[in-house]
Amino acid sequence: MGKNAIVGQSGGPTSVINASLAGVYESAKQRGAGKVYGMRHGVQGLLDKNVCVLDEILKNGMDIELLKRTPSSFLGSCRYKLPDWQDPEGEKTYVKLFEILKELDIGYFFYIGGNDSMDTIGKLADYGAKVGSDIRFMGVPKTIDNDLMVTDHTPGYGSAAKYIGSVMKEIIRDATVYGTKYVTIVEIMGRNAGWLTAAAALAKGEDCEGVDMICLPEVPFNVDRFVEKVERMQKEKASIVIAVSEGVKLEDGRYVCELADDVHAVDAFGHKALTGTARFLANTVARRLDTKTRCIELSTLQRCAGHMTSRTDITEAYQVGGAAVKAAFEGKTGEMVALIRLSNAPYQCTTELHPISEVANLEKKVPLSWVNEDHTQMLDEFISYAKPLIQAELTPIYVEGLPHHTFIQES
Amino acid sequence: MGKNAIVGQSGGPTSVINASLAGVYESAKQRGAGKVYGMRHGVQGLLDKNVCVLDEILKNGMDIELLKRTPSSFLGSCRYKLPDWQDPEGEKTYVKLFEILKELDIGYFFYIGGNDSMDTIGKLADYGAKVGSDIRFMGVPKTIDNDLMVTDHTPGYGSAAKYIGSVMKEIIRDATVYGTKYVTIVEIMGRNAGWLTAAAALAKGEDCEGVDMICLPEVPFNVDRFVEKVERMQKEKASIVIAVSEGVKLEDGRYVCELADDVHAVDAFGHKALTGTARFLANTVARRLDTKTRCIELSTLQRCAGHMTSRTDITEAYQVGGAAVKAAFEGKTGEMVALIRLSNAPYQCTTELHPISEVANLEKKVPLSWVNEDHTQMLDEFISYAKPLIQAELTPIYVEGLPHHTFIQES
Repeated sequence: MGKNAIVGQSGGPTSVINASLAGVYESAKQRGAGKVYGMRHGVQGLLDKNVCVLDEILKNGMDIELLKRTPSSFLGSCRYKLPDWQDPEGEKTYVKLFEILKELDIGYFFYIGGNDSMDTIGKLADYGAKVGSDIRFMGVPKTIDNDLMVTDHTPGYGSAAKYIGSVMKEIIRDATVYGTKYVTIVEIMGRNAGWLTAAAALAKGEDCEGVDMICLPEVPFNVDRFVEKVERMQKEKASIVIAVSEGVKLEDGRYVCELADDVHAVDAFGHKALTGTARFLANTVARRLDTKTRCIELSTLQRCAGHMTSRTDITEAYQVGGAAVKAAFEGKTGEMVALIRLSNAPYQCTTELHPISEVANLEKKVPLSWVNEDHTQMLDEFISYAKPLIQAELTPIYVEGLPHHTFIQES
Repeated sequence: MGKNAIVGQSGGPTSVINASLAGVYESAKQRGAGKVYGMRHGVQGLLDKNVCVLDEILKNGMDIELLKRTPSSFLGSCRYKLPDWQDPEGEKTYVKLFEILKELDIGYFFYIGGNDSMDTIGKLADYGAKVGSDIRFMGVPKTIDNDLMVTDHTPGYGSAAKYIGSVMKEIIRDATVYGTKYVTIVEIMGRNAGWLTAAAALAKGEDCEGVDMICLPEVPFNVDRFVEKVERMQKEKASIVIAVSEGVKLEDGRYVCELADDVHAVDAFGHKALTGTARFLANTVARRLDTKTRCIELSTLQRCAGHMTSRTDITEAYQVGGAAVKAAFEGKTGEMVALIRLSNAPYQCTTELHPISEVANLEKKVPLSWVNEDHTQMLDEFISYAKPLIQAELTPIYVEGLPHHTFIQES
């Protein structure tokens, strides 16, 4: 029996992050790992020795199938930033973590997360190298935000994009129903990168008019120009549907939602909680143009709609988990698995390893060359990029009329 | 060839209202109707002679299948209140409407809608009787609100309940992820009747902890008691998820959302636009209990999530359309089709006719005997009532990764 493996999930959940967990688990077992531990609530939980033994939880094929179909992070998550190990005070945390890992006889450490989580893997691998540890630390990418460098796209994005494209179509059908002047503003997640908001463009097709305007956080936002544009569009068309990123910012750098008067909390990584962008804009348009408006926040559902996932995304999420295990067992450490697209049509994709330093704490934005001149619609380049990622479905297992999940009862 | 038929959709859309349209259309053709007209935007559109010929649009079986899977009102809708025909000024509207119906050689008139729409059918049937018209006016029930009298439930409710139960499960999974104190307040539609909010109770099962509190509009709301209850629950459990009706009211009759400072518009039937209940409560809890909170408005999606419908609901929606046609062809007028439940287990349901006067402008509330003593959880009586309505699925037809619809291009 080989050394044990441990796997954690960190940062915001996605609807396919558990498929990566399944990929890590099944691949580690196949390659002869001893026990496979799960960190409860990431490294933060690990510091409290809050771990579970996945072998005792995932007992058969059905457990794995339910795990793949369960949204949100099965093991729990955290938003915990490791201190600098070069700092003597900070080093204590690492000493403690490595003691716990030794106690658990860990040889392989997998962390499923986004750019903040890759910061964790990078620091652990660096500290491991410094102290001569033989533990291999591997990053498994996930984030609905799709903002990781190096990788063509991130697992989690395809399903979120499929959900956004689908519900935009439904919202557009609903919004046209009265035939009266109506402005619907839909707020979509994405602090600095507009990948999710851009996915609203997928709604357009032979059976749907598509959204009328897309506002990405990559493009400086001007409230007056926005209202003028809505006014012009309303002369042509009664129902206007707009997709706006929660992270749109004014030219002076302030978030549009800061113009509203809500309280804005800040998390451990210093990110402001953004909310209220669509509400502020809907109120502004209603007041200035004397028209009916509605704001819709897709909110949590865009990252946890396990009932509407992309089969392509789920398959790739599983795949990157397996690829991380393969790399670790081959002796790699301090790297992240990236998805590399070989072609759009037919869609073909493979995996590659990249040093964490190329990924951690960096953000990949939507290229402005994929946006029209007016900065309000996505060009074909984006559609060709995104469409393969939303293809096919993984049907939920319905029990008594509702999609069935699996979960760990909090003790 | 018989007389022509005309069908309209009115009030808020649902995700299965087009299945009723399909039921009316196919049954009318089968029973030998001449043309089947569709009112564009209900009677309001009819007054402008804004009609389409459904025979020219629904050409084959695939068109009907897509129609059943398209959310929102295919023909468009309206919120138009007919004037009193006893009033000489009001009568002019009826004279005009009946002239248009005569011009179109209409023998059968079907209106798919809720209690406001049944008011329209009642007035038309009464006026028709007064002027000796032989047109038969039949009501076809629909509303996600489930608040129609006489009928056991309304088509549209089952799918909305299935959607709410499903997404509450997903939201609960998402909300537990950090293991930290977190209060999630989900705002659900339902002005005066809590049927939709009650459906959040369906989330509970062997794979889900369920929601921690349900606040129905039938129960007077007290902000202080609400905050105290949340505080008590937080001592037992980190993540609290609460389903609250948009229509919860204080003991003095004011809507809770009126305590927030947003503008509230009023529609043609005098209903206030309710929004901001969850936001107000989340802000209040955050401030008073110094805890993280999140508000989620299910908003439009709960009535237009065509990608997540109940097969039972879709089947019944189709059925009530057909039953209305059967009744009209048998000479009935001024009546609504009601669903009558024969048994819960096995679930069996049939249709019956009821005079419009038993339905129009009335509202059926959730019986308080189905709520626990504390007024915060639904009892088994409700679960037994609601569960059969969410059973089974009608799989969307996915084209290029998204559910496919059909729509009428606005000219």
